[in-house]
Amino acid sequence: MRIAVVAPSSRFSEEAAERVTAIAARTQPGVEVHFHPQCFLTHNHFAGTDAARADALVEAANDPGFDAIWFARGGYGSCRIAEAALARLGPAARDKKWLGYSDAGFLLAGLYRAGFARIAHGPMPQDAMREGGEAAIVRALAWLVAGSPTSLEPGLEPGRRHAAFNITVLGMLLGTSLEPDLSDHVLLLEEVSEHMYAVDRALFHIAASPAIQRVAGIRLGRVSDVKPNDPDFGESDEMVARHWCERYAIPYLGRADIGHDSVNKVVPFGAFGAL
Amino acid sequence: MRIAVVAPSSRFSEEAAERVTAIAARTQPGVEVHFHPQCFLTHNHFAGTDAARADALVEAANDPGFDAIWFARGGYGSCRIAEAALARLGPAARDKKWLGYSDAGFLLAGLYRAGFARIAHGPMPQDAMREGGEAAIVRALAWLVAGSPTSLEPGLEPGRRHAAFNITVLGMLLGTSLEPDLSDHVLLLEEVSEHMYAVDRALFHIAASPAIQRVAGIRLGRVSDVKPNDPDFGESDEMVARHWCERYAIPYLGRADIGHDSVNKVVPFGAFGAL
Repeated sequence: MRIAVVAPSSRFSEEAAERVTAIAARTQPGVEVHFHPQCFLTHNHFAGTDAARADALVEAANDPGFDAIWFARGGYGSCRIAEAALARLGPAARDKKWLGYSDAGFLLAGLYRAGFARIAHGPMPQDAMREGGEAAIVRALAWLVAGSPTSLEPGLEPGRRHAAFNITVLGMLLGTSLEPDLSDHVLLLEEVSEHMYAVDRALFHIAASPAIQRVAGIRLGRVSDVKPNDPDFGESDEMVARHWCERYAIPYLGRADIGHDSVNKVVPFGAFGAL
Repeated sequence: MRIAVVAPSSRFSEEAAERVTAIAARTQPGVEVHFHPQCFLTHNHFAGTDAARADALVEAANDPGFDAIWFARGGYGSCRIAEAALARLGPAARDKKWLGYSDAGFLLAGLYRAGFARIAHGPMPQDAMREGGEAAIVRALAWLVAGSPTSLEPGLEPGRRHAAFNITVLGMLLGTSLEPDLSDHVLLLEEVSEHMYAVDRALFHIAASPAIQRVAGIRLGRVSDVKPNDPDFGESDEMVARHWCERYAIPYLGRADIGHDSVNKVVPFGAFGAL
């Protein structure tokens, strides 16, 4: 099995690549994790120019020699290339597995909208740099290589469709040509490094959107590294999520085991067990 | 003339109210600026509970003894009450002038969508606390009292319709029941206290929205107090705005004299000169 890593968002680090390569050699012998040279480019905030990032993604995705595309990291930048890059994908791209989260959600969304069947929200190579990050890499590889059930978010339900997103990323793609139809899906949401008032505002936007009101329900992942609020916001992440779900008659289905951390589990998009 | 001040968002200060009262007494004798007692409530992040903020807004708006509603300040909170409060407004509310900006944009949007004809984006009482803030209060009162042309954003064009919003606020109301039809409007946008990558992302969302692609064009107000980006984002506010306008074939019409500052000018919604 050959996995191609591309970096559609922020700058990636050689050190993370080395760690991932070592973990893969130890835990998945016979699997090649190929870091596209674009991963190590830098242009301002990004892992290379918009053109370089889009070209690398399209090249790897359309190469039948790769079995999976793994997004290197989040940060910011994939919305700048998503529409144009996805329009250039051919049949070999559709056969692959795709894995990422955070800013990569713009691409996951567009791929899912385009009918790609083998995409999932889960750990990325940069997670190797986290405390306890090796477990995240092992978990991601186990899903990429063998669809391991132990990698999956434990609350996924047979017979239901699922999707997972960062709250801000989902909000920023609603109404655009990247927005997938999430009707009847259980929607798992997580957030990191935002003020709680911004989380509240983003959940208003999401819950007040008619397309989201057609989901089967919302489960709340971790909302971590919340920035200080002065005065204190006075409501927890779960109070905020429950509030908006109740306000717009969306079933609130409890917590989810996803987030910007090393224990982030894998959530395949679509029907449970389809991959 | 009687102007009612209500605070649908963050906590307001007695000191700002005293300053505004003094400025009004000096520059607009005969005008009463009435600060609804709700302005001075506090509940967590907000100027009172959701119910208290909504009730005060509805009470003042439906009181025929007031000629105008002036939002006390921004911050955060109006999206939590906008839909429910606007549904309770009667004919006396429709006759009034309405003025505010920033977080109050959620309310301006919903009012404009509901066909209210006398609303504008412009300075609020809390601006009295800014350096040079007296000029902002004088400008706002001159528009509220007499529709003074000297208060207006200088680039507004006769024969065109206009609207103005904070970038984040507009993004967070797209697709909700607060979103007005901005077709053929010149859309003025401003931002404060965000990272440039977040401005870029929000402008993707706005420009990639089909409803916004029907505007006559976008003018960019000030993007101030930009939070540090590491690495540097490498593109200016105007580069970012031009990029997304070009990408989605929206005419970019240059800068606008609005922003989170004391020189923020008034932008009446709708046709120029209609008020």
